[in-house]
Amino acid sequence: MQVSYIAPLAKLIEQFRRLPGIGPKSAARLAYHVLEMDKDEAQALAQAILDAKEKVGYCSVCFNLTDCDPCRVCQAEGRDRTVICVVEDPRDVAAMERTREYRGLYHVLHGVLSPLDGIGPDQLRLAELLERLRQGDVREVIMATNPNVEGEATAMYIARLLKPLGVKVTRIAHGLPVGGDLEYADEVTLSKALENRREL
Amino acid sequence: MQVSYIAPLAKLIEQFRRLPGIGPKSAARLAYHVLEMDKDEAQALAQAILDAKEKVGYCSVCFNLTDCDPCRVCQAEGRDRTVICVVEDPRDVAAMERTREYRGLYHVLHGVLSPLDGIGPDQLRLAELLERLRQGDVREVIMATNPNVEGEATAMYIARLLKPLGVKVTRIAHGLPVGGDLEYADEVTLSKALENRREL
Repeated sequence: MQVSYIAPLAKLIEQFRRLPGIGPKSAARLAYHVLEMDKDEAQALAQAILDAKEKVGYCSVCFNLTDCDPCRVCQAEGRDRTVICVVEDPRDVAAMERTREYRGLYHVLHGVLSPLDGIGPDQLRLAELLERLRQGDVREVIMATNPNVEGEATAMYIARLLKPLGVKVTRIAHGLPVGGDLEYADEVTLSKALENRREL
Repeated sequence: MQVSYIAPLAKLIEQFRRLPGIGPKSAARLAYHVLEMDKDEAQALAQAILDAKEKVGYCSVCFNLTDCDPCRVCQAEGRDRTVICVVEDPRDVAAMERTREYRGLYHVLHGVLSPLDGIGPDQLRLAELLERLRQGDVREVIMATNPNVEGEATAMYIARLLKPLGVKVTRIAHGLPVGGDLEYADEVTLSKALENRREL
């Protein structure tokens, strides 16, 4: 008789394999690790998965992930309600928040324009962004989509879309990453860094 | 107000971080992925973790992971009950089974001798191995611990321990891995490969 993985183990490996960045070897290692955990630990892991799925939804204002509605950023007093930072993804909100610099609100598009993937303006949360701007308090929209082809195209598209509303639309700066190395920077980044030089 | 991850998300990230080979970035990526999953998928993942923990235990004979006792290998008809392959870990059983060459039984030590980590003979499943050998059917014990310092020491120790029982103890061969490259082989492996050369 040929024996491979026992059924519950095989099933767990298969489940782990579906996660991003987890190949067959990592999935097996994770599954074996789960078997070596205390029962409490394994239950805590399973419960965290269920809880996250159960308790987390999208903010009805900015469409960031939240466990209350409106989300804590949208509810927060002392944040600047005249500035909205538009990002592609909830992960980008987390990244912005880690800077501890930005004090305005957010708007999460949940994607970028990508005609090849069939993602047009209707698939993004653009109508909701326009609605927020029509309410009148906002004076600046910061386009913080990723600095790649789709991100740039989306930023340009939205900038043009918002022009008639008379709101200022800005784009986050391109340049060399801090701690980066001129020698290894790609030409486009370096040209942008040169173009956007500032007087010291 | 400074907003970082919302509580259920932070908790899930923390749980993923405890898994081996998962750093903070991977943990966040996995957690965000879970939030994007269908509810059914997330439940399937959580359930697989619980099921694996619930249904999988150790075989009372060979101490491999199993969902029935004795395990399927120990129960299987048509496997050679006169040979026991001694391995460190249930993962090694899975690796051996994948060769589809080995037809004997197994014994999982659950570790190797490692005095610095406080693992002596009593922490391994050696008493149980001796008990199996005393029952008399076994004529060969194959030491398949890893080819590193601890694995070798453990193999030597067990070989000496089993000598009085009159059972043949063998060690898996050292040599160049198939598909390997002589140029890049380390000296010790190459010397072993030379030493263990066979006539063609």
